[in-house]
Amino acid sequence: MEKLIIIGSGPAGLTCAIYAARSNLNPVVITGHNPGGQLMQTDVIQNYPGIESITGPDLMMNMMQHAEKLGTRMIYENVASLSKDGEFFRIELNNSDALTSSVIVYAAGTTHRKLCVPGEKQFSAKGVSWCATCDGAYYKNKVVAVVGGGNTALMEALFLSNLADHVFLIHRGDKFRADIAMQDKINAKNNITPIMNSCVVEICGTENVEYVLLDNDKIPRLDVSGLFIAIGSSPTSLLLKSIAELDEAGYVKTNGQTATTCSGLFAVGDVVSGSLRQAVYAAGTGALAAVEAEKYLGIR
Amino acid sequence: MEKLIIIGSGPAGLTCAIYAARSNLNPVVITGHNPGGQLMQTDVIQNYPGIESITGPDLMMNMMQHAEKLGTRMIYENVASLSKDGEFFRIELNNSDALTSSVIVYAAGTTHRKLCVPGEKQFSAKGVSWCATCDGAYYKNKVVAVVGGGNTALMEALFLSNLADHVFLIHRGDKFRADIAMQDKINAKNNITPIMNSCVVEICGTENVEYVLLDNDKIPRLDVSGLFIAIGSSPTSLLLKSIAELDEAGYVKTNGQTATTCSGLFAVGDVVSGSLRQAVYAAGTGALAAVEAEKYLGIR
Repeated sequence: MEKLIIIGSGPAGLTCAIYAARSNLNPVVITGHNPGGQLMQTDVIQNYPGIESITGPDLMMNMMQHAEKLGTRMIYENVASLSKDGEFFRIELNNSDALTSSVIVYAAGTTHRKLCVPGEKQFSAKGVSWCATCDGAYYKNKVVAVVGGGNTALMEALFLSNLADHVFLIHRGDKFRADIAMQDKINAKNNITPIMNSCVVEICGTENVEYVLLDNDKIPRLDVSGLFIAIGSSPTSLLLKSIAELDEAGYVKTNGQTATTCSGLFAVGDVVSGSLRQAVYAAGTGALAAVEAEKYLGIR
Repeated sequence: MEKLIIIGSGPAGLTCAIYAARSNLNPVVITGHNPGGQLMQTDVIQNYPGIESITGPDLMMNMMQHAEKLGTRMIYENVASLSKDGEFFRIELNNSDALTSSVIVYAAGTTHRKLCVPGEKQFSAKGVSWCATCDGAYYKNKVVAVVGGGNTALMEALFLSNLADHVFLIHRGDKFRADIAMQDKINAKNNITPIMNSCVVEICGTENVEYVLLDNDKIPRLDVSGLFIAIGSSPTSLLLKSIAELDEAGYVKTNGQTATTCSGLFAVGDVVSGSLRQAVYAAGTGALAAVEAEKYLGIR
């Protein structure tokens, strides 16, 4: 019987482990098949405060070692099922092992929807990005493109227009799905060019992205240094579906202090509804969940 | 005219600066007379995720350099007054300089109330602490004392009782001011000993704290390795009194997403009502404030 099990091993889950370990809770982290989370697919991070520049994998390796040295047990497996039986949670792993725990901190994150075109994987973190807040600063005075037609895509384009020289906004439909207010902001910028009824069919370059090919006879090619893909993301929340309330898009609802609608289940990081999807923010919520879990366990 | 001025230079303020600088907002940080905030008075920090162990001053120097290298302007002054005139904020500094800005991020933190007894300053970060969550882990299997009689003091004692061998809870009054529920939890622990009607009059040791002297004839001396002072803290919020809503204790009320009741004024870190007073949590709120300020400024 464990006191605290953390599902997920990005900044949120590992920070929760660091705090819980220092409180003598002997936390267990179930990493999933992608230990370290999304930052493992990131190249350089320059907005983690106190560390001027570090690769995503290096930061996450540091966090994993940090958590382990303080007494966290890592289980490099996926969770097959999660249920609550009375006061306790029961977890079955893909390898058929089972664990029980008084508290679960859920930190399984999200996955970005991919274009699934040639070059996308090859140039990931070499010009292809899923986060303007994270990577926009690398494209000051360059030309970039954003793919997508919803609020997120238009917000990414707007944000990038303050950094990049020019932003192409590529959308497969003939009109944007974003709010009219957001569309008005886009229209007011003279360095954003919408390109409608078009899909990226290939991402090309040598070391880094140099251009993208479109299925558009008039504009078959755009020379860009960066391509920001904003066609949606999905929370990894299927395990919680029957035990906690999710929002319409499947993100986990909390009370703003990490508690979910299921007593003893806390949620942190990108999987939480309305969360800022940034490493340091996710880490902060992980620390809060540890403290809230300790109150729940009666040791605070 | 500045776009964004940050008041305060702890983890919350500097993280906000790092994010705002990467968004081309050329942020200004007014550090106050204690650049770096409370962590400058801390010895070793072992719960900042990704950095296993670092001194408080080193972490804060890293954050200050980080923010500066990205283009933050630091002003090493105190703010004399802050007012809002129409859409804009006006700041006067103690040296009589004045600045105006569209957005203010307020991150001025708190100060802990001190005992003002001999040894308190000398042994600060050498056995004297104001934060069990931060420093409790260094006292595993040791004997410590907590000073105070309110909810915070009892919560600190309860938390420490899971780490330390024994906890003395020293209170100057004849009964605790904490909730009965919290008092019941304390009474249920057999390794917490309340010592009522007593004040610490001196903190003694050579390198680190070894014992404290009390004004109690029966128990004039307690041998402890750590002394946790929990007699209250006060938010540095006087500047906001006439422009934003504060809670009863003077902490700044926000909507949970860093916005205060004053449009264009955001608050982050320890000065916020109900905030978790931890470096990584404060830093996370700083990142959020930058993004929220960018929305307010219309660049997102």
